[in-house]
This record gives sequence, structure tokens and C-alpha cells, in this order.
Amino acid sequence: MEQSFLAWLRGRQRDLPQVAVGIGDDAAILDWPSSRQLVTSVDTIVDGVDFLLDKHSLASIGHKALAVNLSDMAAMAADPVAVLVAISLPNQQATQVAAGIYEGILATAAEFGVAISGGDITVYDGPLAISITIIGQAAPQKAWLRSGAEPDDAVLVSGSLGGSILQKHLAFTPRVRLAQQLRDSFTIHAAIDISDGLLLDLDRLCAASGCGIELQLDQIPISDDAKTLSLQDGGDPLEHALGDGEDYELILTCPAEQAADILAADLGTPLTQIGVLTSRTGLWSKLPNKLIRLSPRGFVHGG
Amino acid sequence: MEQSFLAWLRGRQRDLPQVAVGIGDDAAILDWPSSRQLVTSVDTIVDGVDFLLDKHSLASIGHKALAVNLSDMAAMAADPVAVLVAISLPNQQATQVAAGIYEGILATAAEFGVAISGGDITVYDGPLAISITIIGQAAPQKAWLRSGAEPDDAVLVSGSLGGSILQKHLAFTPRVRLAQQLRDSFTIHAAIDISDGLLLDLDRLCAASGCGIELQLDQIPISDDAKTLSLQDGGDPLEHALGDGEDYELILTCPAEQAADILAADLGTPLTQIGVLTSRTGLWSKLPNKLIRLSPRGFVHGG
Repeated sequence: MEQSFLAWLRGRQRDLPQVAVGIGDDAAILDWPSSRQLVTSVDTIVDGVDFLLDKHSLASIGHKALAVNLSDMAAMAADPVAVLVAISLPNQQATQVAAGIYEGILATAAEFGVAISGGDITVYDGPLAISITIIGQAAPQKAWLRSGAEPDDAVLVSGSLGGSILQKHLAFTPRVRLAQQLRDSFTIHAAIDISDGLLLDLDRLCAASGCGIELQLDQIPISDDAKTLSLQDGGDPLEHALGDGEDYELILTCPAEQAADILAADLGTPLTQIGVLTSRTGLWSKLPNKLIRLSPRGFVHGG
Repeated sequence: MEQSFLAWLRGRQRDLPQVAVGIGDDAAILDWPSSRQLVTSVDTIVDGVDFLLDKHSLASIGHKALAVNLSDMAAMAADPVAVLVAISLPNQQATQVAAGIYEGILATAAEFGVAISGGDITVYDGPLAISITIIGQAAPQKAWLRSGAEPDDAVLVSGSLGGSILQKHLAFTPRVRLAQQLRDSFTIHAAIDISDGLLLDLDRLCAASGCGIELQLDQIPISDDAKTLSLQDGGDPLEHALGDGEDYELILTCPAEQAADILAADLGTPLTQIGVLTSRTGLWSKLPNKLIRLSPRGFVHGG
């Protein structure tokens, strides 16, 4: 199956300037811009954990498999260049499933100008699993790290949070363009994408930077889905916004004096300041007269 | 599990000059040499198809997962730089299995100076599957393609062929160093690694180059394992050498006038001329007075 499938895939991609030799040989070849670093990561999504094959559309599953990787590029402020896709397919209707997933991958890849530079298909006795490696590029020392944050930085978050399980986890827009705009016009000290929940990922960023954070809980942007989910489960919308995984929004830190300019800029995606970094470590809720320590919660997904 | 596992993995790698930021952030960052193309591919190996978890050692499975990818770099004459490893683990003893596999990956990565720049671990209800993406580099227009062969080229093969299933498929040495030596000292027109069998992969190279081949069947280097396997199954050692998959040797074509020099060079790996390319397409066995057409056979593994 693989040879004919790769031929089909070759025919479905438009030419991209970075591709010197496309898929079909023992490896693909990309032209690499001079003086650029390579930024790379890998993420796997699996049926029953990250999506439900018997419920979600194949194209939406393909979109998610690619979008979680694009979100990592956004968190680094890297420009995505190419992806390699390894799909493990259950025996039933394997070709049909693979084609449906690739429809979603191809559409999202085209939207972000990303080449599909490798494809491996395995048919096996196991659940559908899609593992994508993404390759991006960045100017030297310009990629955002989790470790670059400094005390007194303003902490911003994109979009609104919580309740992603209702639909957003399959249909989110990775914040690649937002990151590119911010990188090109402002100083961002540190960033991380929210994959496991706001508090948990904030805790990771703070730990990597040796900082703590004073959060203003009344400023957390709560999504409509967090409110809907709370009506269903009797929970608190704020708890969903703080703890739910798979928002795939960006947490960003910037010099305090730049926050107002960033928040006033027309970036196409809402940004909200949710707190300030401190030299005192830990997560703290800042109330008028006191600080309350928060524990990093959040759902650690994907094992 | 993933966070602590990645911390363990970080501690197990020595510093490599190409790594600017190792695993642990949203993505890893590599320094990229100026004026170099990027060569990349992905391969997955799965329990029950490519190895047997209840029979083969975990380290040998890890070695194979990486070595099949290194073999692709050898086939392109690319220098391997980094790999990203996605492992899907069955629920039982997941941490132990992952650690054992990584022992094999780490040893082979160290041997070839390859950085592990990404790791994703999924625990699921399915068979052990290891998907590795490899990133290599090559001087512009210097990578070997399947499509570069020309009529009258000599066709060489490394090592000896057949019977890989007995042991070599798990324990082979990817021909990275051989490829680097040949690339640096000689003109090679085209190359492919033997993953699905000599005839089948020869047919792919010929098809990509618009050539055919006149094979000298009495020159095919038959491995001892092909002979052993023939004693066991009553088959013909030559058939094993022609058709068995997973030799992971290189098929190379070069200008006829250069073949003698290459064959006389001290490269540390035996090379044998097995035929000559022709403008007549197809695979042909050259006998004293006639040509007999061969059909590409070979075992197409991994789906």
C-alpha cells in the first residue's frame, strides 16, 4: 500500500519553495535558509486518548495531529517548514481511514505553508495512532524558551480557556501567526503553549525560569465552553479555565512596560494580562489584601 | 511519566555541538551549518511485524528502530544530525520497556554522533511501536538519489545478501560511514538501501532513473545466513539473496570507468559489482549467450 499511497500524496501537494526533493526517495531534501536555527518536536495522538475514531471526523483528527505540532512551533516563535507523518492504522478500512486523515493534514499544512516531507504507514492490530514530527526555523537566539522569563514580567494569555473537550481540542487554530507577529514587533521573554492546563503549564514556565507568578484570577479569560461544561457538570467555570488541558493557547511573558502596547495592538487574536511574575517561586492568587498559594493542577494528557 | 522520562533521557546524552537547546522545552533547537541541505525521513517498526517483543532484546529493538533510519541517511549519503523518537507502549511494564529500548537507541545514537532531539511516549492498548524521524545534512545537490543512475553505470552492492531474518535485520550496521567515504572520494550516480529485497529495490532504482539492469547472478554476494536458511527451508541461497528483505545494504551505481578504483579501495566494507545498467528497461539476467528477464520479487515488509 505504501508506495501507491505516497504517490497519491505527492500528487496532492502543491510545490513549496523549501522542498528540493519531495517524498518518494529514501528521504526528502529541504533547502535550508542560511543563518537559521532548526526547531523541532514530535507529538503522537492516539484513538481513545486524544480523539475517538468512531465519533470524530477523519479530517478533524488529521487536523489535530498536525495542529498540536504547529502549536509547539508557535510556542517557540518558529516558522513551520515541514512535517513527517507516521500513521499506524487498524486493519479495518485502512486505506480509507488514511486518506480521510490526510485530507485534514493536507488542508492544515496548506494553510500554514508546511511541506509533508515524509510519510510512513503501518497497518497493524492496534488503535489508530498518528505521530508527527515538525521542523521549523528561527533566527539564531530568537526562539522563545520557557526559561527566558524574568521577575516583574507581565504574563499574557491568548484566546479564552477551559472546556476544550467539548470541541476546541479538535478544531483549534494553532497560534503560529500570532507568535510571528509578536516576535516581529515586540519583545517576548518566554512562552509555552497550554497543553496540560493553564496552572500546570504556568508552573512549568515558572520552574524553567526560576520565577513565581501572582495571578489575578478575576482576569482569567474564561471560554464559553468552560461555562457550558460547568452547567453540565456542576463545576466552576474558573476551575475549568485554570485546569482543563488542550487549550493550545499561548502563555507569554514580556517586560512590564511593553504589556500595554501589546494589549493595544491589533493582532487578530485577543490577549489578556493575567498576572505578573515574581522572584518568589510558586503560583499565587493576588487578592486585595493577601496572596493565596495555588497548587498546579491541570490534566496531564497523553500519559 | 513523560516529564520524568525526558529528564532521565536528557541526563543520558552527552553534549553534541549541533544541539543549541536540548529536549525539555516545547521543541528542541539545532544549529544548522550554512549552505547545507536538510535530508529527512521517518520509519516505524512494530511488534509482530518488524520484531518480536517476547523474543528479541529491548536494546536490539531500539537499535533497529534507529538503524533503519540511519540506513536511509546512508542511501542519500547524508550526515545524520538528530532524531526524534515516538514510542507507543503497551500498558504492561511500560517504563521498563521504554528504558530498555532507549538503551539501544542511545548506544547507536552515540556511535553515529546523532542527537536525540525529541521524544514522545504514549502508553496505550496496542502493540509496541517505535517511530523515528531522522534529520541529516548534505552539501547542496550532493545527496544521492534513486533517479541519478545512467546507462552503462556499474552497479555495486555492499556486504552480502539474504537470510537477514535469522539475525541481521536486528543487528545490522547501517552503511553511513561507507556512504560518507564513497561520497567524499568517488562519483556515485544513484543509491538505494535494500529494505524490501535486492530485486525489488533494484527495480525501484531503475524505474526512478529510467534504466534497466543486466545482472550477473553468479556475482551476487550470498550471505552465510542465506545458505543456513536454505538448509533449513530447502530453498535456494541465491533466491534468498535476491528476494529477502531487510538486508539494509546499499545498492550503488557509478560511472563504469570508476568501478575498479572503488572496488580496489580499502573501505572497511566489501563491495561487489553485480551488473551494469542499460537503456533497455527491466531486470535482466546476463548469461553467456542470452538475456533472461527477471521479475522484481522481494518481500514488501511493513505493509
